Amino acid sequence: MNNGSTRSSEEVSLKAVKITDSFWSGYQKLVKEVVLPYQWEVMNDRVPEAEPSHVIKNLRIAAGLEDGEFYGFFFQDTDLAKWLEAVAYILETYPDPELEKLADEAIDLVEKAQQPDGYLNTYFTIKKKGKRWTNLYECHELYTAGHFIEAGVAYYQATGKRKLLDIVCRFADYIDTVFGPEPGKLQAYDGHQEIELALVKLYKVTGEKRYLELSKFFLDERGKEPFYFEIEWEKRGKVSEWNNSTDEKYSPGQNRQYNQTHLPVREQKEAVGHAVRLLYMLTGMADVAKEYNDKSLLQACRNLWENIVTRQMYITGGIGSTSIGEAFTFDYDLPNDTIYAETCASIGLITFAHRMLQIENKSVYADVIEKALYNIIIGSMAKDGKHYFYVNPLEVFPEASEKNPIKRHVKPRRQKWYSCACCPPNLARLIASLGLYIFTKNSDTLFIHQYAACEAELEVAGSKIKVVQESAYPWNGEIKIGIVSDVQKEFNIALRIPGWCRKYSVDLNGNKLEADNLLKEGYLYIRNVWSGNDQIHLVLDMPVEMMEANPLVRANAGKVALQRGPVVYCIEEEDNGDNLSALSILTEPEVDYDPELFGGVHVIKIKGYRRLNDGWENKLYKPAGSKYKPVNIKAIPYYLWGNRTPGEMMVWIRRAGNEID
Amino acid sequence: MNNGSTRSSEEVSLKAVKITDSFWSGYQKLVKEVVLPYQWEVMNDRVPEAEPSHVIKNLRIAAGLEDGEFYGFFFQDTDLAKWLEAVAYILETYPDPELEKLADEAIDLVEKAQQPDGYLNTYFTIKKKGKRWTNLYECHELYTAGHFIEAGVAYYQATGKRKLLDIVCRFADYIDTVFGPEPGKLQAYDGHQEIELALVKLYKVTGEKRYLELSKFFLDERGKEPFYFEIEWEKRGKVSEWNNSTDEKYSPGQNRQYNQTHLPVREQKEAVGHAVRLLYMLTGMADVAKEYNDKSLLQACRNLWENIVTRQMYITGGIGSTSIGEAFTFDYDLPNDTIYAETCASIGLITFAHRMLQIENKSVYADVIEKALYNIIIGSMAKDGKHYFYVNPLEVFPEASEKNPIKRHVKPRRQKWYSCACCPPNLARLIASLGLYIFTKNSDTLFIHQYAACEAELEVAGSKIKVVQESAYPWNGEIKIGIVSDVQKEFNIALRIPGWCRKYSVDLNGNKLEADNLLKEGYLYIRNVWSGNDQIHLVLDMPVEMMEANPLVRANAGKVALQRGPVVYCIEEEDNGDNLSALSILTEPEVDYDPELFGGVHVIKIKGYRRLNDGWENKLYKPAGSKYKPVNIKAIPYYLWGNRTPGEMMVWIRRAGNEID
Repeated sequence: MNNGSTRSSEEVSLKAVKITDSFWSGYQKLVKEVVLPYQWEVMNDRVPEAEPSHVIKNLRIAAGLEDGEFYGFFFQDTDLAKWLEAVAYILETYPDPELEKLADEAIDLVEKAQQPDGYLNTYFTIKKKGKRWTNLYECHELYTAGHFIEAGVAYYQATGKRKLLDIVCRFADYIDTVFGPEPGKLQAYDGHQEIELALVKLYKVTGEKRYLELSKFFLDERGKEPFYFEIEWEKRGKVSEWNNSTDEKYSPGQNRQYNQTHLPVREQKEAVGHAVRLLYMLTGMADVAKEYNDKSLLQACRNLWENIVTRQMYITGGIGSTSIGEAFTFDYDLPNDTIYAETCASIGLITFAHRMLQIENKSVYADVIEKALYNIIIGSMAKDGKHYFYVNPLEVFPEASEKNPIKRHVKPRRQKWYSCACCPPNLARLIASLGLYIFTKNSDTLFIHQYAACEAELEVAGSKIKVVQESAYPWNGEIKIGIVSDVQKEFNIALRIPGWCRKYSVDLNGNKLEADNLLKEGYLYIRNVWSGNDQIHLVLDMPVEMMEANPLVRANAGKVALQRGPVVYCIEEEDNGDNLSALSILTEPEVDYDPELFGGVHVIKIKGYRRLNDGWENKLYKPAGSKYKPVNIKAIPYYLWGNRTPGEMMVWIRRAGNEID
Repeated sequence: MNNGSTRSSEEVSLKAVKITDSFWSGYQKLVKEVVLPYQWEVMNDRVPEAEPSHVIKNLRIAAGLEDGEFYGFFFQDTDLAKWLEAVAYILETYPDPELEKLADEAIDLVEKAQQPDGYLNTYFTIKKKGKRWTNLYECHELYTAGHFIEAGVAYYQATGKRKLLDIVCRFADYIDTVFGPEPGKLQAYDGHQEIELALVKLYKVTGEKRYLELSKFFLDERGKEPFYFEIEWEKRGKVSEWNNSTDEKYSPGQNRQYNQTHLPVREQKEAVGHAVRLLYMLTGMADVAKEYNDKSLLQACRNLWENIVTRQMYITGGIGSTSIGEAFTFDYDLPNDTIYAETCASIGLITFAHRMLQIENKSVYADVIEKALYNIIIGSMAKDGKHYFYVNPLEVFPEASEKNPIKRHVKPRRQKWYSCACCPPNLARLIASLGLYIFTKNSDTLFIHQYAACEAELEVAGSKIKVVQESAYPWNGEIKIGIVSDVQKEFNIALRIPGWCRKYSVDLNGNKLEADNLLKEGYLYIRNVWSGNDQIHLVLDMPVEMMEANPLVRANAGKVALQRGPVVYCIEEEDNGDNLSALSILTEPEVDYDPELFGGVHVIKIKGYRRLNDGWENKLYKPAGSKYKPVNIKAIPYYLWGNRTPGEMMVWIRRAGNEID
């Protein structure tokens, strides 16, 4: 029965999966109807009070359609690239001629902005003519290329239209003439990883192996001695692009961990430096490891996965403990209030996990995808689809965000846009492509990684089947899976038992299965001769759990977090009054459905105490003897925080008398 | 009996007070025999592995005695100025011909470095000729002048030698020709306050009222519109001295709170910005308020005192919650591990409190002096006298200091020296002048503010008396005060009842006094006809207290600090194992004398729990159910932390089951 588990598995086509889930289709609809049109307006600078974008204008200037100056970061183009990719994913399952028309227009513009030799980047075309490839360390040129490539691939897959794919192939072909091991080419790589994973996508859709080889080349060069960025820095006169400074402190050698150039990628074992860069790199590494069956590359992926997930990940699936360098810090250092946890970093964690899941069928990868999806990802966008978090804190005190400089990046409200707007379109493309994360398959097994109502038409073990998932996940752990097949065929359906689940049962066509015997690395392998209309009924026990953190996570000492299924909860000032730090909770939380809140949501109620301010007027310190009063505390799903009056929020809550149970 | 309380009081001469206390005379001896000779060597760049100083070399270059470049900060001269001031205080009570010879030589050098017009500043003399007074915002010119003035006054008072006093009078006279309300003079002030308090000292010792007027002028100008620093910034071409940048973000208007120029000083109510600057300013404001009987200036002093002490002060007497700008943040924001709490800021708090104590006889001022002395001040220096803290944290985890950038300023070990070495010589002058803080007096009352064995020859109410204090403070709350007088005279002896003391008794010549009736604003006024040899016997009850912080101090929620008398305790890794965050304590701490530790010290023992790591291998989160084991926890005085193997330290400790008492 376990054959399937030892083989790698493949992604299924996005087109094959139709999300019918009321939870997720709401988000996808929001992306389609609100987020993408809104972001288009932003990129055209038509949203009052939002940070200026200038993305379309930069392209028009580069295309010679109008005069003007470049505005924005040197990677400003990527906002459009990610938007196009998101549009493509939407079009895969929700045809929308209007959106497609906008996208086609944008692609026409991109084509006009492309240079005769295939080069494409408005910053260098408009502002830094003749300076291509002189500052890979800082200027994100290949990163920007990578996002265009991802868009080209996605748009082709969705629509069959080749224009953008052709554009990015021309660009990639040009890049291939500039970079490579051959004499006369640059033995270099980008300061911000992204092109690596993009080139693998391009290889897969075109079959052109040069793209895969170039991806591997970039990975192999990274971290080599002599240090390319230092050579480049000297060559361009030791000037930083960010601030025109020649101060040695801006030289690339000062912090090689920042962009993961401190060691060859195969030798890296601890997650350090800029989190998004690392996760994009790891996504590409896993891709290349799989394509080449490269064991040392795969081992590095496993090592870094292990380090991130067992040492440096927040309970929400957030990663990156410090705003300084948007970076990892060190094992178990997970402060809640000075956290970074960038939305894009969790997106990178999801894509990395998704690639690993295609190499080895271990539920931990899908567990982390689930964790990030239900907490960081949907939490980073407001209910209205027009406000976004870049940073996803686990504890917020608005006055501190305003007045303590080390918390200034922790915003108590989602913003309309960001000057560095990497996150909002990234989020759109992730939600739009949710269907990619539900299944993978190999010749003998269909894996069901995520639970969400959907219908999928898939070919498994040479046989065409239809899978119909029904559930009210994540609020209810009961999942029905119908397998409709025209012919008889034996293969496995492997169901993920989530890491949070301590008790479950499963039956097939009404017959209870001995589930424990079927479990391997987190998946229940149900082997069966599927014929006609089979029904799997999985019940995941989903009580509220009081979660503790590893004792080495100093920030959470004495505290617990409330979680139900994959959904992490938080308490907000709106429900519990101000100064949430004065609250402590007892055991026995209860789940309750609140039909009024956000159109109906499961909340958690728990008894606890509030320490009183009585007798503390104008005193900072005095002998112990505070008064407490019993209070009822209400927690809401973390992903919904910040959608009402701005105020305090807290995930990790002090527990009254932990030691005295 | 209360006449004395309504009048202001005066500082007594340092010469009149001889510290005999074994606790403090050890520190003073250390300053005399180790600290000052060591710092002299550092200033002469003769200490291997210490940060270079170049102070003496700068002076020699400015004096034309050798060639070379200026090195260091633009206020580098102040290290010598503070050192000279410290030497002066030592010489007041401990004659030392060798130290005096070094100081005289240094003063000769200062004289040679002084310019013909009285100007004195090696940075501008060597490096920025012709640029005097063009960048008051950044360059600390008047700040440096202020420290020379303080040194000149102290050295004259200690030795009767006028050379340095004459030097600084010439300098002050020159400054008076440059600044003032008259047309043609600069209506300006310094970016770093200090000259204000120094000029009052110079006025007091010379009787020259122009100095006092100039001090008041600087205070009155500060915060006025139009904003002088912005005018100056434009005049010098909008260039920052720190980094030669013309970026608008370095313009003075970007953060006027930083140097307290956001409002006229009389209108400031909340402590904001750079903590040392504010406290030096407040010291000068209190001085000027007293001299002019300036009620609005005094009220501003009271408002800011109240804000600092009841909202923004650590339990150790540390102030400044963030390293960014070395600054205050906002009310109740007192993080323990990202704290700043600069040594110099607490020194400023002591001098401010000392000035307020001469305006109004309220024990809270002396309480804060005591708190800062027994915790921050002596804690900022190693037992060896040769290593110093600039930042005084309440929680340290060495790996975090190394790897999380927002904790990089929190050093787990005292350093040999600092490139910005304001703190070590500042500390030396404070400890050397401890005798100044014990008494003040007015025509009717002798106030005893601090308890430390000493002998003082004082004139009170026109009568010469000798006061002999005996105690084993801070370890024992029993204090004997002998008043020896040749003639009969009626006046008050006012004894401070410390804010930490909840129970006390006092008797005079063996007769118990009804203490409660004698208490006013924290002082016990003992009115008596003193004649011959009277004995006061004060007993302050000194149990270990478990202190809580105001519930609005979020960082200390659920935590207590151990304190006995004025001494705050901490736990260290050396005594309690690593991961101090896993510990929680029960009630009933006990004091114990450990004769082995640091030559004998009172430690605190308390029972508690340690949360165990069992079952947490490779897991970050899981449902509650941790195991705890009972442990004995040992706390040592905070000021002794970091004198053994470097490791974790913590002041605020989680309390097991606060709510369940």
